Amino acid sequence: MASDETMSELSQMSDDADQFFEGVEKLLEIWFATHDANEKNSDLRKIPRSKLESLLKIVRCEIISSVKNDHIDAYVLSESSMFVSKRRFILKTCGTTTPLLCLQPLLLLAEQYAGFTEVEDLFYSRKNYKRPDLQVTPHQHFDQEVALLDTLFPDGAAYCLGAVNRDCWYLYTLNPLPQHNRRPMLSTNEGDQTLEILMTDLDPEIMAIFTKEECLNATEATKKAGIDKIIPNMTIDDFLFEPCGYSMNGVSKNNSHEVLDGCYMTIHITPEQEFSYVSFETNVPASSYKEIIGKVLDTFKPGKFTVTVFTNQLSPTKDTSKELLCRTQIGNKWNRRDVQQISFKNYDLTYAFYTKFPS
Amino acid sequence: MASDETMSELSQMSDDADQFFEGVEKLLEIWFATHDANEKNSDLRKIPRSKLESLLKIVRCEIISSVKNDHIDAYVLSESSMFVSKRRFILKTCGTTTPLLCLQPLLLLAEQYAGFTEVEDLFYSRKNYKRPDLQVTPHQHFDQEVALLDTLFPDGAAYCLGAVNRDCWYLYTLNPLPQHNRRPMLSTNEGDQTLEILMTDLDPEIMAIFTKEECLNATEATKKAGIDKIIPNMTIDDFLFEPCGYSMNGVSKNNSHEVLDGCYMTIHITPEQEFSYVSFETNVPASSYKEIIGKVLDTFKPGKFTVTVFTNQLSPTKDTSKELLCRTQIGNKWNRRDVQQISFKNYDLTYAFYTKFPS
Repeated sequence: MASDETMSELSQMSDDADQFFEGVEKLLEIWFATHDANEKNSDLRKIPRSKLESLLKIVRCEIISSVKNDHIDAYVLSESSMFVSKRRFILKTCGTTTPLLCLQPLLLLAEQYAGFTEVEDLFYSRKNYKRPDLQVTPHQHFDQEVALLDTLFPDGAAYCLGAVNRDCWYLYTLNPLPQHNRRPMLSTNEGDQTLEILMTDLDPEIMAIFTKEECLNATEATKKAGIDKIIPNMTIDDFLFEPCGYSMNGVSKNNSHEVLDGCYMTIHITPEQEFSYVSFETNVPASSYKEIIGKVLDTFKPGKFTVTVFTNQLSPTKDTSKELLCRTQIGNKWNRRDVQQISFKNYDLTYAFYTKFPS
Repeated sequence: MASDETMSELSQMSDDADQFFEGVEKLLEIWFATHDANEKNSDLRKIPRSKLESLLKIVRCEIISSVKNDHIDAYVLSESSMFVSKRRFILKTCGTTTPLLCLQPLLLLAEQYAGFTEVEDLFYSRKNYKRPDLQVTPHQHFDQEVALLDTLFPDGAAYCLGAVNRDCWYLYTLNPLPQHNRRPMLSTNEGDQTLEILMTDLDPEIMAIFTKEECLNATEATKKAGIDKIIPNMTIDDFLFEPCGYSMNGVSKNNSHEVLDGCYMTIHITPEQEFSYVSFETNVPASSYKEIIGKVLDTFKPGKFTVTVFTNQLSPTKDTSKELLCRTQIGNKWNRRDVQQISFKNYDLTYAFYTKFPS
């Protein structure tokens, strides 16, 4: 499928494969449940730290920092982030990590230490890689990832949103038949939402902030870029890599505001110009995501970006998808190339892809 | 990606590959335009019949019957159908035909005989095949089809709707950047809509109608199944294959009703129980497709089906997508497994997939 232009681009790139880093993350989010009446005692945070560390070895990354509040343990990893709360596990890892290989061991740990016997909901997603050829099994192709997931989840359904021959975004989730007569899902009893913005072709001057050349440490980079202003009242755990690269987790300050309880945000930055990539993710509820999206775009000034919004029926954010459907342009700078909506049992998903106006 | 069950099913199937027929059609729809002020003289129906016949040789099928009205020439082919009107060309072919191979010659004929120098819009779509392994190049894989189309159309965008690891539906269309400042498209000046229902696992008693064993000829099959009742006031051109299989085209009777001018319907039936497949397609405008969808389902009683609805802004049908979004069940018989919406420059598309309740 590669045009001559792509071919020459590829061969040029393989010359500097050593310098390349895949910023695009694999994002795994699992909601656990149990049929046990003692569900209130079940808690993923009972899994010992040493067990989490062994799990991450399988994924090919490690914990480098952590922060917590009453609702969530947030870990900065050598490759992105991990969030552990009572019944939700989030693992977001970039580079050539292999998060799907930890699925089976994770299900065992969730049962053994946390008392969870069921996977109530699962979301595995990622943008198309810039260099799929550098990935390792089972992450070289979405079909490969789907094949592995299908062996574990009979109700799994795999989707591709956006144009498969341009920028797109893959998702695997559970989509069981309605008549399975399952126990009503807990997640339908609580509002939940996730906003993710995946950006490429970023402003080189802004990307320079996330290098040891320009900033002494992560705190300086966070302030200089204005990352601490995107969502206020967050305890920030940030890390500036050597010689460049940046990760941050934010968790809501205890008792900062009831609506923010259990909220997180996370940003990961690959600043190199040839393969610049920034991801932003949060589960902060809002009646509109217009302001947060605007702040993120002003902070990073991407050439292209995807926006995905998941909302369930109880989410205060559930009308924000209508905003995206109307916004064929954002900030008089970005044109929408694609917009798609999809409905699952508990969640509605909106996907949009924008590119900057040609200069 | 194949499970053990699928593997054994596949090996069993390859034993009877000779008996297998791929009912799933490849559907190509092209809207032509010209920058010439004399566009009113441009007409695809000026392409000589002999040239169309040569074109279809490349596709590996031939004309077996035809009917026309003032707006449209409708051909029943040895493998499905072809519709030629002033500036719209539709080719729908099943089996192991190769419609994408006729694209370049078709563009030449459109210029040479009909005076069209531009492709204004293009839609290439199909359901996932039952037996992709039996297809020939370039139709063995959607990636292969996309690669060919990408060589011809710089603004092409490829999508997959529905679950890629279950039943899904592929689409390639043009999705140019807004700022290309192209001439406004003619199609935005006329209402247009297409409803397609692709059905599998059909009722064997109904499928038996479409065999020479049960019916003497196509007219008998059409009446017995009630196909003539689905959309009234159509001139019907139908064909019953030996020993089984059925195709029909309907074009609106001249002056039957202004709103039906240029309307068509087409149905193709592969009745064999092991791989039964029925497709229904029409561009009839309606404020709701509920009634037509209901009639089609009552006529064929499928185990599973996909519904796709394309509507542009001037289409009276444009609100029918909202109906599909609400219909998690149809007729207390079918459950919705998937629903997706996607917006293109001129068209909105809704895709839904339903399966029958387990008995």
